[in-house]
Order: sequence, then structure tokens, then C-alpha cells
Amino acid sequence: MAIITLTTDFGEKDHFAGAVKGAIYSELPEVRIVDISHSVSPFNIPEAAYIIQNVYHSFPKGTIHIIGIDSELNDDNKHIAVKLDDHYFICANNGIMSMLCSEIAPEKIVKINIHDKIHSNFPVLDVFVKVACHIARGGTLEVIGKNIDSIKPIKNISPYVNDDKTQIIGSIIYIDNYGNVVTNIRKKFFETIQKGRAFEISARNYKFKTIHSKYSDIVNFEIPEEKRNDEGRGLVVFNSSGYVEIAVYKSNSATVGSASTLMGLNIMDTVTVNFLKE
Amino acid sequence: MAIITLTTDFGEKDHFAGAVKGAIYSELPEVRIVDISHSVSPFNIPEAAYIIQNVYHSFPKGTIHIIGIDSELNDDNKHIAVKLDDHYFICANNGIMSMLCSEIAPEKIVKINIHDKIHSNFPVLDVFVKVACHIARGGTLEVIGKNIDSIKPIKNISPYVNDDKTQIIGSIIYIDNYGNVVTNIRKKFFETIQKGRAFEISARNYKFKTIHSKYSDIVNFEIPEEKRNDEGRGLVVFNSSGYVEIAVYKSNSATVGSASTLMGLNIMDTVTVNFLKE
Amino acid sequence: MAIITLTTDFGEKDHFAGAVKGAIYSELPEVRIVDISHSVSPFNIPEAAYIIQNVYHSFPKGTIHIIGIDSELNDDNKHIAVKLDDHYFICANNGIMSMLCSEIAPEKIVKINIHDKIHSNFPVLDVFVKVACHIARGGTLEVIGKNIDSIKPIKNISPYVNDDKTQIIGSIIYIDNYGNVVTNIRKKFFETIQKGRAFEISARNYKFKTIHSKYSDIVNFEIPEEKRNDEGRGLVVFNSSGYVEIAVYKSNSATVGSASTLMGLNIMDTVTVNFLKE
Repeated sequence: MAIITLTTDFGEKDHFAGAVKGAIYSELPEVRIVDISHSVSPFNIPEAAYIIQNVYHSFPKGTIHIIGIDSELNDDNKHIAVKLDDHYFICANNGIMSMLCSEIAPEKIVKINIHDKIHSNFPVLDVFVKVACHIARGGTLEVIGKNIDSIKPIKNISPYVNDDKTQIIGSIIYIDNYGNVVTNIRKKFFETIQKGRAFEISARNYKFKTIHSKYSDIVNFEIPEEKRNDEGRGLVVFNSSGYVEIAVYKSNSATVGSASTLMGLNIMDTVTVNFLKE
Repeated sequence: MAIITLTTDFGEKDHFAGAVKGAIYSELPEVRIVDISHSVSPFNIPEAAYIIQNVYHSFPKGTIHIIGIDSELNDDNKHIAVKLDDHYFICANNGIMSMLCSEIAPEKIVKINIHDKIHSNFPVLDVFVKVACHIARGGTLEVIGKNIDSIKPIKNISPYVNDDKTQIIGSIIYIDNYGNVVTNIRKKFFETIQKGRAFEISARNYKFKTIHSKYSDIVNFEIPEEKRNDEGRGLVVFNSSGYVEIAVYKSNSATVGSASTLMGLNIMDTVTVNFLKE
Repeated sequence: MAIITLTTDFGEKDHFAGAVKGAIYSELPEVRIVDISHSVSPFNIPEAAYIIQNVYHSFPKGTIHIIGIDSELNDDNKHIAVKLDDHYFICANNGIMSMLCSEIAPEKIVKINIHDKIHSNFPVLDVFVKVACHIARGGTLEVIGKNIDSIKPIKNISPYVNDDKTQIIGSIIYIDNYGNVVTNIRKKFFETIQKGRAFEISARNYKFKTIHSKYSDIVNFEIPEEKRNDEGRGLVVFNSSGYVEIAVYKSNSATVGSASTLMGLNIMDTVTVNFLKE
């Protein structure tokens, strides 16, 4: 039996996520439901796009991902189901899928039309659950929608490179639970432009000349533990999702501080990479 | 095998919810446990009542709902199990069930007495789990308690209507993850009093003359998207649970603001509906 | 099929916990995964140690507990798997297991060595999942690691007793969802030192002469409910995990206040017990 995952901005308190789970189990008692996140910031599409992009491939092929962010049906916001990389995604056509679809071509996109007569202000419950259960039972996308060719893009999701390729201008797209700030600059993209050159990464007035492969790379283990002073130091890493990330070693936004709080870095802030002449 | 749901104020960090799940699986390895919410505000009975009322009916008949809010056993706070609408509810007799029982007559209420000799300051773990597993195995309520006729009410849960039925005085009973504020005025109740008359809804110094059926009803889709200015606008809707709700379009309490933060509306605040003369 | 539990500091928003669940289900479709907590404060080892100690024994023997706190592999922080009380624990050797191992002798500890060639900055996903699935399939610890004798301790986890046993100096090790503050003084330890003597517990300028067995013990049920004034009163209890805890009756840090907010008590603060001469 298939897995259905849930990624929403419903929060941890309200009954919405529970209602969706109850409705799915009512239709399919044997299905497995996995909560990815219900704490996406309300209506924050880039955040949801980042989460789903980095999590879906850990699941088996055939998994069905419900994404409940800004999903009220209206003239500008239609519901879609997408098959991509042998996974299924059900969401509003509001940009959530554009980050993923820019990396991997979708096999099929349909505009959902089973609900043309359903009025609902809880479409995840009333529409997405029905679509997910249809797919989980082996149903095809053609039955629940009409093929479409393209989806709505997210703006400014890609970094900018200047003409002589001496500079990448990226931006911060995600701040994680540790207050580490993730840029839109992917490792592969960085290395393609870099071509081995030395570089300097700038965010506000902070500068970095190295990208580490793990957080504790900045620790000097030859110094005895009680004499080290590494906690709270900033660094840049390629994070586990393959993005350039500005981090603080053993950060905690609520106590010792984090990259976001200590350096004052926020979503949409610019991060620049300057490549040095050889 | 039955489903057991959990609605508590245990929070997301502590070990309490995990301990309850472990104890259930130890008794019934094949049962399905669904977290509804562990983020009910501590000791907030109306909040728990609102959540459970709006979620239970999404689950299959026969589902067992454990509600762990203010459940310490003492002279004033006994444990009950309720069968209602073919669902089972296990909780303290502290008002949580009164909202639901005022809508639908319970089939059976028992005061739990299996634990007269158990001393516990974690009754959800030590008592509610045992009751839930007993029911999940097909046991009857009579075995674990003594029939009682009535339960403790929540005060002030119903709106007030004046004698000549020109005014409803309601109050705010719930604030959701989007900062939307939910009143205790239900759609059916509103329409029964309204009898088609025009009306004005007042909350603090904010006035509304329309109740929408979805949030994006206030958007004018004929204006190009980049020129619209609807985010942050207040409106009133019948929410997906059928209550009058004061909302803000695409709200986020932490960033652009919400009905609660922008209008300064809080739990227990008054919301008035004045019906106009015909 | 075994149960795998997750206790991490990944938070509720990020994709990390979802990725771990997807990876486990990809290997073992029939396993049961239970979230204990993803809201451990970032890098807070004593907090994680307190949670896992108090939750593991609610689960059936044979359960596998993944603890993902400060788990980046480096010269000072190796990965271990521990068998203790017929449960399995997979974590970094950073002190998390020392609280539990000081109570119950572990049956076996291995330093994990299956990943000597894996570079990862997401070791919970890349290493702990593999180890957990290996154990869930019935594999032995010897296959995935090398026996070791001892683990890294947490400092200052035990209370201090003076030479003539008239005083216990403890400290606050955990603050729960209700703002109640938990000390490192266990009931059994307290009673061994107490030997029936009267005592006074001091925390800042607050003094208590009784340890209650439940929170509502301070309520006088002979007074009618509407005339009582107990909410917000401080008290000391042996909590459900058997620790001395300073609590406030029906507390809520966000509204009426809690032991932590009202008395200004924080992690690492001292709590003293003075025993009186007979």
C-alpha cells in the first residue's frame, strides 16, 4: 500500500492536519500517512518548495505527496497533480512545484477537475484527499484532471551570474531550525561557474573564503576540548541538500545565537560570491 | 483494528506524548495511533473542545479519542468515557465534552472506576491508555465505569440573543494558526436568527456587512495580480467548521499580521451582530 | 516488526525528520516509526537525555531508539549503538546515554564503523537509519561496530550531598511544556538521604516544606470551586518520572505564568534541600 505524505502550513495546534489524516484513513484504512511538516510559515511558497524538494526522494517511488499551502481554489489558483521522478504531488498551481520542475522534467501535469461542483474552503480535506486516495488505489491522473503543459513559476528562485562570470549574486531562500541560512546557490552550479578559482562569499559585512563539507571542519581537534572556542563561529558549508549555507557552529537562535540572529541574515537577503582572477 | 487519536496539551518537546504512544503499542501492536494535536494551550479546555468537535467526524466510526487536558484525578475532576455518534472519547469531566454533547446527544457516559486504587500523576498514561485499549479490543464501557447522566458544562460557550432578536452577542473562542479568530456563532444559528435580514458585524471598531464563503472572495480577479492589494484585508467568513470567523486574507501573525494581531482580537473578546430593520 | 523511535533537535518545520522517515520506510515498508520529539533544543544534550530516559521503557522490549542530537561525526564525536534493558539506542557518543547508563548497566556498547568511508553531514539519515534497519531486521551490534567499554559522561548530572548529609545541592535539568522545572534529585535518592527528616527546599528566594504526590494536592476541595484561588500557586511534587519538580498549579508560561517564568527559574539553577535536625 502506498505512502501519503503531508506538507502544510496548518501549524501544530489546529485540527486541520488531524482532519486530513482521519479522512484518508476513512477511505484507505491500510495506507501509511507520514507528516513531513505542518510548520511551513503561513502562505510561504518558497519555504514549502524547498522542503518538498529536499524530502521527496527519501521516500519510495510511488509515494503521494499532499502539499497544503495556499490551496484555496479561485480564478488564479487552480489545483494540480504532478507526476515527477515516479512520485506524485498534489497541490495548488502557485509556484510550489516550480523549484522541483526546474530540476527534473515532470512526466505529467494535470489540472484537477473532479471538484468543479464542490464548493470548499478546506480543499486539502475535500479535494486533495480524494485525489491522493484515487492515486493510492492505482488510479491514473487522466481520470481526475486535464493534461496541462506548464506550471506557474516562482520568481527570483535562481541566482544571477554576471556576463564575465566573475560573480554570482544569490539570495537566502530558507532558514532552518538551527538558524542556518540557506542560499539558492547549489553546489553543482557553484562549481560550474567557479572552475577551480579562489573566491570570497559576502553576506552583509561577513566574508568567507572557504566552503566546508561539514560543520565541525572548523574545529581544531588538537586543542583540548575545554580550551576550544568554536561554538558560535560562522562558516559556510554545502549543506546536506547541496546548497551553499551560511551556518554557525552549534548554533541555537534562542540561546547562543545563530547565523540568522548573529549576522542579521533574513529570507531574500543577498549573498554574493566573487571569484578572484587567476 | 481501531484508530486511537491523541489530543493533548503535552507540547511538542516533552516525552509525554511519546510515552503514551509507547504504552499503547505495548498493549496493542497493531493499533493505529493518530496525533491530532499536542499543542493545545496548557489547561485550555475550550480550545481542546473546539479542536475535538471539528476533527472527530473525519475519522471512521468506532475511533477512540484520548483527550489529555487537565486530567489529574481529584474530587472535582473525575475521568469519563463517552460514546457519541459512534465514536469514543476518554477525558476528564472538565467541560471538554460539553461543546460536543450540546450538539449531539451522547449514547452513553461512564465515570471511569478502574483506577480507584491507582495513584497517578500521569493519568493519560496510567488510566486513559488502559481504557482506550480496552475499547479497542471490543470491550464495553460498563466494564470500566459506572453510567452517569450528565457532564460538566463549559460556561459562556453559546452566544446571547436579545429578546426582539435584533442582536447576537458572541465571543471569540479560538484563534487558529493563521491568526484568524473564530467566534462561537455557528452558521445555522446565525441564519436562523437572521431570517434574510441585512446585518453588521462588529469587533472592536471593525465593521463587516458580508459573510463570505471563502477567503479569496474579496479578491478582484479582473485586476492583474501584481496590481492587486488584497493581502492583509480583513473579512468575515463561515469557516470550514461552520463558524463565523474574522479573518485576514493571506495572513501570517509573524510577518504581515493577522486578524488577531492587526485588529487586536483575543480569546473571549465580544463580537456583535446587529440585524437591520427591514 | 520492530518499532523505531525518533528523538531529535530537527524542529517541526524542516524536512530532516521527514527525510529520515522516508529513508526508513524505503528500507523497511512494514516497520512502525514513532516520533518522540523533534523539538529538543538545538544541541541540548541533557534535555535529550532526560526525554529518552523517561520515555524508552513505555515501549516494548526490542524497540530501536534513534537519537539525533549533535551527531556530526568527527574526532571527538563518534557514533555508538547501545543495548540496554533490551532496548537499542543509536546516537553520538556525546553524553546522551550517560544519564541512562548511570541507572542501568548497558548490555553492550559498540562504536559504529560501517561508515568509515561515508562522508555525510546528515548522519542520522546516512548512518543511523542504516544501523536501525539492520537491528530491526534482527542483525547484531557486532556486525556494525566494535565493542567498547565506556561512554562519554555528562558533567554535573548528579546532585551533591554534603559530608554530614544535612544538605542536597541539586540543579534544574529540564523545563517542561507547562514551565514546571525539573531538578536532578530523584525520589529514591531524596528519600535515602532524608531518612524521614523534615526539610526545606529552596530555589532562589522560594521555600517549600512539602513534596506533594500530585499537583492538585494543594487544592482545598471543601471550598466551592468559584471561591478557590489555587491556580498560580507554587508547589513541589515528585513528578511522573520520579524527580523533584517545582511546579505551579495549572500553569501556562504564555498566560498566567509558570514556575519558570513566575519564579525566574532556569536550566542549571541551583535547588537546595536542607534537612532539619531531629
